[in-house]
Amino acid sequence: MPQTFPFSAIVGQDQMNLGLVLNAINPSIGGILIRGEKGTAKSTAVRAIADLLSDIDVVQGCLFSCNPHLPVNYCPECLKRSADGELPYVNRRRKVVELPINATEDRVSGTLDLERALTKGEKRFEPGLLAKANRGILYVDEVNLLDDHIVDILLDSAAMGVNVVEREGVSYSHPAEFVLVGTMNPEEGELRPQLIDRFGLCTPITGITDPDLRVEVIRRRSAFEADPETFYKEWEPQEKNLSEKISEAQKLLNRVEASDHILNKISKIAVNIGVDGHRADITMLKAAKTIAAFHGRTSVTDDDVLAGAELSLYHRIRRKPFEEIQLDMDLVKASLRA
Amino acid sequence: MPQTFPFSAIVGQDQMNLGLVLNAINPSIGGILIRGEKGTAKSTAVRAIADLLSDIDVVQGCLFSCNPHLPVNYCPECLKRSADGELPYVNRRRKVVELPINATEDRVSGTLDLERALTKGEKRFEPGLLAKANRGILYVDEVNLLDDHIVDILLDSAAMGVNVVEREGVSYSHPAEFVLVGTMNPEEGELRPQLIDRFGLCTPITGITDPDLRVEVIRRRSAFEADPETFYKEWEPQEKNLSEKISEAQKLLNRVEASDHILNKISKIAVNIGVDGHRADITMLKAAKTIAAFHGRTSVTDDDVLAGAELSLYHRIRRKPFEEIQLDMDLVKASLRA
Amino acid sequence: MPQTFPFSAIVGQDQMNLGLVLNAINPSIGGILIRGEKGTAKSTAVRAIADLLSDIDVVQGCLFSCNPHLPVNYCPECLKRSADGELPYVNRRRKVVELPINATEDRVSGTLDLERALTKGEKRFEPGLLAKANRGILYVDEVNLLDDHIVDILLDSAAMGVNVVEREGVSYSHPAEFVLVGTMNPEEGELRPQLIDRFGLCTPITGITDPDLRVEVIRRRSAFEADPETFYKEWEPQEKNLSEKISEAQKLLNRVEASDHILNKISKIAVNIGVDGHRADITMLKAAKTIAAFHGRTSVTDDDVLAGAELSLYHRIRRKPFEEIQLDMDLVKASLRA
Amino acid sequence: MPQTFPFSAIVGQDQMNLGLVLNAINPSIGGILIRGEKGTAKSTAVRAIADLLSDIDVVQGCLFSCNPHLPVNYCPECLKRSADGELPYVNRRRKVVELPINATEDRVSGTLDLERALTKGEKRFEPGLLAKANRGILYVDEVNLLDDHIVDILLDSAAMGVNVVEREGVSYSHPAEFVLVGTMNPEEGELRPQLIDRFGLCTPITGITDPDLRVEVIRRRSAFEADPETFYKEWEPQEKNLSEKISEAQKLLNRVEASDHILNKISKIAVNIGVDGHRADITMLKAAKTIAAFHGRTSVTDDDVLAGAELSLYHRIRRKPFEEIQLDMDLVKASLRA
Amino acid sequence: MPQTFPFSAIVGQDQMNLGLVLNAINPSIGGILIRGEKGTAKSTAVRAIADLLSDIDVVQGCLFSCNPHLPVNYCPECLKRSADGELPYVNRRRKVVELPINATEDRVSGTLDLERALTKGEKRFEPGLLAKANRGILYVDEVNLLDDHIVDILLDSAAMGVNVVEREGVSYSHPAEFVLVGTMNPEEGELRPQLIDRFGLCTPITGITDPDLRVEVIRRRSAFEADPETFYKEWEPQEKNLSEKISEAQKLLNRVEASDHILNKISKIAVNIGVDGHRADITMLKAAKTIAAFHGRTSVTDDDVLAGAELSLYHRIRRKPFEEIQLDMDLVKASLRA
Amino acid sequence: MPQTFPFSAIVGQDQMNLGLVLNAINPSIGGILIRGEKGTAKSTAVRAIADLLSDIDVVQGCLFSCNPHLPVNYCPECLKRSADGELPYVNRRRKVVELPINATEDRVSGTLDLERALTKGEKRFEPGLLAKANRGILYVDEVNLLDDHIVDILLDSAAMGVNVVEREGVSYSHPAEFVLVGTMNPEEGELRPQLIDRFGLCTPITGITDPDLRVEVIRRRSAFEADPETFYKEWEPQEKNLSEKISEAQKLLNRVEASDHILNKISKIAVNIGVDGHRADITMLKAAKTIAAFHGRTSVTDDDVLAGAELSLYHRIRRKPFEEIQLDMDLVKASLRA
Repeated sequence: MPQTFPFSAIVGQDQMNLGLVLNAINPSIGGILIRGEKGTAKSTAVRAIADLLSDIDVVQGCLFSCNPHLPVNYCPECLKRSADGELPYVNRRRKVVELPINATEDRVSGTLDLERALTKGEKRFEPGLLAKANRGILYVDEVNLLDDHIVDILLDSAAMGVNVVEREGVSYSHPAEFVLVGTMNPEEGELRPQLIDRFGLCTPITGITDPDLRVEVIRRRSAFEADPETFYKEWEPQEKNLSEKISEAQKLLNRVEASDHILNKISKIAVNIGVDGHRADITMLKAAKTIAAFHGRTSVTDDDVLAGAELSLYHRIRRKPFEEIQLDMDLVKASLRA
Repeated sequence: MPQTFPFSAIVGQDQMNLGLVLNAINPSIGGILIRGEKGTAKSTAVRAIADLLSDIDVVQGCLFSCNPHLPVNYCPECLKRSADGELPYVNRRRKVVELPINATEDRVSGTLDLERALTKGEKRFEPGLLAKANRGILYVDEVNLLDDHIVDILLDSAAMGVNVVEREGVSYSHPAEFVLVGTMNPEEGELRPQLIDRFGLCTPITGITDPDLRVEVIRRRSAFEADPETFYKEWEPQEKNLSEKISEAQKLLNRVEASDHILNKISKIAVNIGVDGHRADITMLKAAKTIAAFHGRTSVTDDDVLAGAELSLYHRIRRKPFEEIQLDMDLVKASLRA
Repeated sequence: MPQTFPFSAIVGQDQMNLGLVLNAINPSIGGILIRGEKGTAKSTAVRAIADLLSDIDVVQGCLFSCNPHLPVNYCPECLKRSADGELPYVNRRRKVVELPINATEDRVSGTLDLERALTKGEKRFEPGLLAKANRGILYVDEVNLLDDHIVDILLDSAAMGVNVVEREGVSYSHPAEFVLVGTMNPEEGELRPQLIDRFGLCTPITGITDPDLRVEVIRRRSAFEADPETFYKEWEPQEKNLSEKISEAQKLLNRVEASDHILNKISKIAVNIGVDGHRADITMLKAAKTIAAFHGRTSVTDDDVLAGAELSLYHRIRRKPFEEIQLDMDLVKASLRA
Repeated sequence: MPQTFPFSAIVGQDQMNLGLVLNAINPSIGGILIRGEKGTAKSTAVRAIADLLSDIDVVQGCLFSCNPHLPVNYCPECLKRSADGELPYVNRRRKVVELPINATEDRVSGTLDLERALTKGEKRFEPGLLAKANRGILYVDEVNLLDDHIVDILLDSAAMGVNVVEREGVSYSHPAEFVLVGTMNPEEGELRPQLIDRFGLCTPITGITDPDLRVEVIRRRSAFEADPETFYKEWEPQEKNLSEKISEAQKLLNRVEASDHILNKISKIAVNIGVDGHRADITMLKAAKTIAAFHGRTSVTDDDVLAGAELSLYHRIRRKPFEEIQLDMDLVKASLRA
Repeated sequence: MPQTFPFSAIVGQDQMNLGLVLNAINPSIGGILIRGEKGTAKSTAVRAIADLLSDIDVVQGCLFSCNPHLPVNYCPECLKRSADGELPYVNRRRKVVELPINATEDRVSGTLDLERALTKGEKRFEPGLLAKANRGILYVDEVNLLDDHIVDILLDSAAMGVNVVEREGVSYSHPAEFVLVGTMNPEEGELRPQLIDRFGLCTPITGITDPDLRVEVIRRRSAFEADPETFYKEWEPQEKNLSEKISEAQKLLNRVEASDHILNKISKIAVNIGVDGHRADITMLKAAKTIAAFHGRTSVTDDDVLAGAELSLYHRIRRKPFEEIQLDMDLVKASLRA
Repeated sequence: MPQTFPFSAIVGQDQMNLGLVLNAINPSIGGILIRGEKGTAKSTAVRAIADLLSDIDVVQGCLFSCNPHLPVNYCPECLKRSADGELPYVNRRRKVVELPINATEDRVSGTLDLERALTKGEKRFEPGLLAKANRGILYVDEVNLLDDHIVDILLDSAAMGVNVVEREGVSYSHPAEFVLVGTMNPEEGELRPQLIDRFGLCTPITGITDPDLRVEVIRRRSAFEADPETFYKEWEPQEKNLSEKISEAQKLLNRVEASDHILNKISKIAVNIGVDGHRADITMLKAAKTIAAFHGRTSVTDDDVLAGAELSLYHRIRRKPFEEIQLDMDLVKASLRA
């Protein structure tokens, strides 16, 4: 397993990085879709965030990484085992699982051995990628090229936190809670609006145009390629720092409050900008709260809402076919001030 | 099984909610198609209505939830068993069964084990989703993305109340009476007009634009996500109340009468608005009667017709290809007054 | 098997009803294609006509409902059995068999067990829907959505009265004489002209616009749905009457004559209206003769020709692509008068 | 097997009938493609010509109807059997074999049992329709709807007189000499020009517009349908007469001569009319010679060329895409006179 | 095997005939693509050239027709056998193998018995058409209708002289040197430019318009069809003569020289005419040398270049989409004179 | 194995040749895409570069050509074997593996014997082309015709240096470091921009228009075809020389430095030219360094950047759909001077 590029060493791309960090803190935000031109460190960032994820306790030997402290979410196997006493567990890093573009439904959801189910009355389940992704990040590069039907499975599973596999009357279900991260280059085709809407956050991304920053990109990349270990050591303090900040924010999150005033502003922004449905409002609130927690605060400020709005609204603006998405941040700010 | 959002706590969307309640009271209305933009609580509402459905007696161990008190509708298995004496039964809530977008015909209708049928002269049937949906609600999210052929099966089964599976001369049939609820986002393609027409009711749905109501949406959703159990407790009285109102209406329904005057008005509305065929009239009458029952009355009023018309006409208006559907309620009202 | 709506209780739609009755009397007319908007009782009428069909004698246990009195049409099995003496038979109603839209060739034509044929020299044939439809009505709802290849099989079989199944040199044939009834909504696509032409009759159908008749539609439908048995009793006399009229007409049919004058008029109508080929003329004559018989007459009148023309010409008028079909009945009448 | 309509009783359609007769006399003409509107007796004529075909001697029990008097064309089986002495044979009518529109390659060409070929070194061939059609007529209704690849097989086989089946290095060949008759309705799509060119003759066909002749069509058809046997008896003399004329022409054909003058005229017609390649000239000569023989003559006249040209040129005229075919017979006549 | 039409008896079509003869003499020219209208003796010519090909020695029993005198090109089987001593061989005519339009990859390349390869470590190869075509001509009629992927295999094999079959790590290779001859009617679609370029030569072909020559075509064709044996005898001297000329040219070919002056002219023609890449130049030189040899000369003349250019340039001229190919021979001549 | 055309004998095409040489020296450059017209020695060059690749040590019997001196990259098999002591190895040339256009995923990635994995707990992996290509060049002719999904696999593997095969929970991974060389003719369709971007270098290629150079092309090609061995001997000194220069450059490469000034210029070029993302900058630097090494220098000059830019920018210029790519080298030079 080669050393990955440190998250803190990514030059620029603040929106993308913030979106990833917010999801790392608060998976209920509902993932992020990163839209942008080729060669802009999208994959690098997603792989890098893995190193900043908190450790979790997982039941030893469980194919679904069940949480030993949450019996209500046990998979069928853990349920059975737990009847015989407490489950042994280990502590490990949350994982980033990558979904290949040509993954089949069986590969994603897992498969049921019907033969055995029917003849021996015993369910044997071969876990898929959703099993592997439980309590981690599921990363889909070029999500717009994925079969619609697979995207549906991913988003349903992400929304419900459960993966249910049914074949001819036999069914098996296991926990599948994960942060869905998708990247796409809109040059190569769009996602259906219905699917885009179900990503919590979304951010556009372009290459950096400041020449000095570009040089910094080259420099860091060259240094990393030449000697990944040394490069990582150099950035370890920043990585540790960010990792701890994420950890602290996770603990603080439940205590963050948003005033009625804030709620009103959120709803006004959504109406003024013109979005379909209500997911935008709810996500704005979640994002704003998580940003507050990231900054160590327990009450949401206007600036938190502003930052949350930028990530929550972009993909929910009503637009005509073939029109470019344009998020009018001035209108957002005006709504906030109003 | 996680707690579902309470039906009574849905903010706005009165037409959708009424349509679901009418079908819960009177399944012969023929289901409902909810058309609208993304993120508007369509799925939430359908899942929530499940909690308000009345309890039913079902034959114990029957794969089709046969009604123990209605021998003429027994499935083949219950028929056989009933020959040996009365059937034991249990009382349980009606169910909402969800049909996945990529369901195959076998998965929907069930399968016949031909091998066994031919060699042992014994029919073994593996029930499908239609078996599961008997006497409940069958919910299809994004019904416009379903294969036409599967929609045909659903609508045929919904219309006849029976599911017939035939393979190479062997056939098996079982009761399959259910309320079909479909949701769709017209942005992503239409249903064939022939299929739309066979949904009893239809209602468009959009996001709420009143800022205060929007805040209420956020508030309730956040409260629910933070602590589903407490939230549910808070809304339990309203839920109970509505559930009882539905129960009462079901008992009253058979006694509701519509005068000739009302029938005349219904037919005038249909002619003036310009609909294909006669399903609109028949559904308007059924809906109006059910609304009367819901309000505890036994005779249909002009207002019942008006409310029923809004849900029965929307999808049956004659229109040109690519034209938006526009239901002219003023014309409906004028026809009613005339 | 639920009670069907009585044929006599259908409001309006005289052309469709006449067309069905003519085919019930005289299957050699070649079926009927009902084209029209949704919700216009197309299916109801076809299912209802079944109750008016005459009884027939069928060989007991024969999978093809062979006519015991017509040995030249015996299926292979009946041929064998009849060698051992006279065949026992029963008397039963002619049947309406419905062809599902996704029926495969095997399902329609039946299948040959090649294994057995080749190894044991014994032909085992699993009958399909054409076997079931022999001597009855084969009903295809939305025939325009059927695979062209299946429509070909239906029309060939309907034309020849025989179903031949051939697989790798082994062949099996059985009688398959039936009236083909198809319905279609032209909004959802056309049939190939070649196929349309092979339906004997064709009639367009639209909803009723007279408000009083519409009320009558609602009233009858509601009464039927509320209590099918009572409703049927109410209409039994009319049903019996019509059934007998059909029976009488069948007996009279062979004796109906058409004068040279009538033949001349038929050919003039066809030329003036402008049809492809000669099927229109031949069908007009058959329809006119059957109408005469239905009215208890043995000679064809101008009015019989007029009524027959309306059902025989509609789908054979030469027209440009994307043009609506328009049958100029004034021109037909003028040709008749000339 | 029902009685077919007598060929002589077909009203009008002289070109189609002549084309069929010429092929019946001289199979080397290369078949005929009948293009025309629906309902114009195309199928009737093809089935009827079968009754006029001459009798042939065929080897008893041979699956390919081998000619017992032509050992050079024996199929492998006959070759083997003939080594043990002379082959027994029977005399029977030439056959019309009909090719279903959805015939697969296996069904057309036959199949090789590879298993047996490889394991036992013994070739077992299941004959297809080409085997059945040997020395008869192969009739394809709606040939334009056939898969291009199947049309290729038919035309190759028709051109070579042999059907070769090869699978993984094993091959089997048998004689397959037949007259290919295709019908098509150009409304429903064209054949590739390359394929059209390989039919020897081609004729357009439309309905008859003379009212008296139309009446005659109705009259004969009705009489035939009412009582096929009696109708056939009525036409038997004409049928016998035509059958004998065909027989005589077959004997005379080899002695028919065409002068240099005639050859010159044929080539001039082809150049003036503007055809691709040289097949038109060669077919014109063959057709003219066969027409002479049909008239009992042994030398070709201008009129024979004229009649032959009409059937040979129609489908070979160079034309632009989407243009209707128009054969300028005045230009043909002028070329002939020049 | 019926007698083929003699190559020398083909009327006109000099370019096509020269192209075939040049390939017969010098297979390294790289085949020929004949493009033209239907009915122009394309297939006849290809089949006829087979009779003029020289005899070759082939190893007895070898599935790939290995050359006994060229051990470096032995197939694996011959390699093994040759270890036990010299290989017996026979002398036979080079063959024309025809590739059917629907040939699969397996049929073309042959198949590997993986089962045996993996379990017994023994490679068993079922040879395909490329094996059969080794050292002969591979003829593809309507090459433009062939699957692109199959054309790729043909051209790769033709270019390398080897056919390699690889399946899951097991591979087998055998010599596959052949002249690829393709015919196509551009009316029915083009070949990809990349594929056209890889045919050595290309020539357009149209019907003859001179009436006297047309008569000659009819006359010869009729004579041939009437009595192939006698016709062949008549042309035998010309056939023998041409066959010997080809034989002589093959022996002379290695000694033909082209001066620097000639090379310069070839390169100038290519630049002036405007071709992609360098294949045109190299083929022009090869064709010119072969023409010289055919005329019994050992040095290339301007006329040889001119004749070679006409066959080498036609398909390599740069052109716009949908433009007709036009080879400006005046420009070629001017470049030659310059 | 026939003698390949010597790389040094290719006339012109300096950019393509430089790109291939740079990749031979420094595989981390990321391959090259050669875009150009047909017949321009693209394939010849790729096959020829194979002879100039340095020798490598590979573990004896290893299916993945593992590097015996780099245990961290050992395949699973080598890991196991190395536990028992040092691995024996041999020295051989790096290889060029060609990927056929219709290669399946199994063929590319290899396959896992699941049966054995699941029943015996033993992983058996059948290596694919990526295994064969490890530490060599993977050549894809007409890469634009490859299935997108296969291109994804290639580029992912090329980027990560590892091939991971996963099937139903079982996974196998092995080193797959290779230089990816693709050729394409843009006339026949484009690659997706996302995929083009992932080729390190890209160069357009056209035929040579200088007549004298064209003659040289003909002369060398003819000489080579006439006698490959002799031709190769003639060019052996140049080949040896170039091979050694590549070897020297490989040793020098790690010591090449680029000043801050150079980095600044690189970033300015990218901004001024207008490229997506940052891959262009990083590749420009790598290419420039490799060019310096090729010239025996250890510091990068402006000219190295210029040469590197030409190969790194061409395919990353932002452009409109259907626009031709135009790299403005004057603008590059101006940016360099600025």
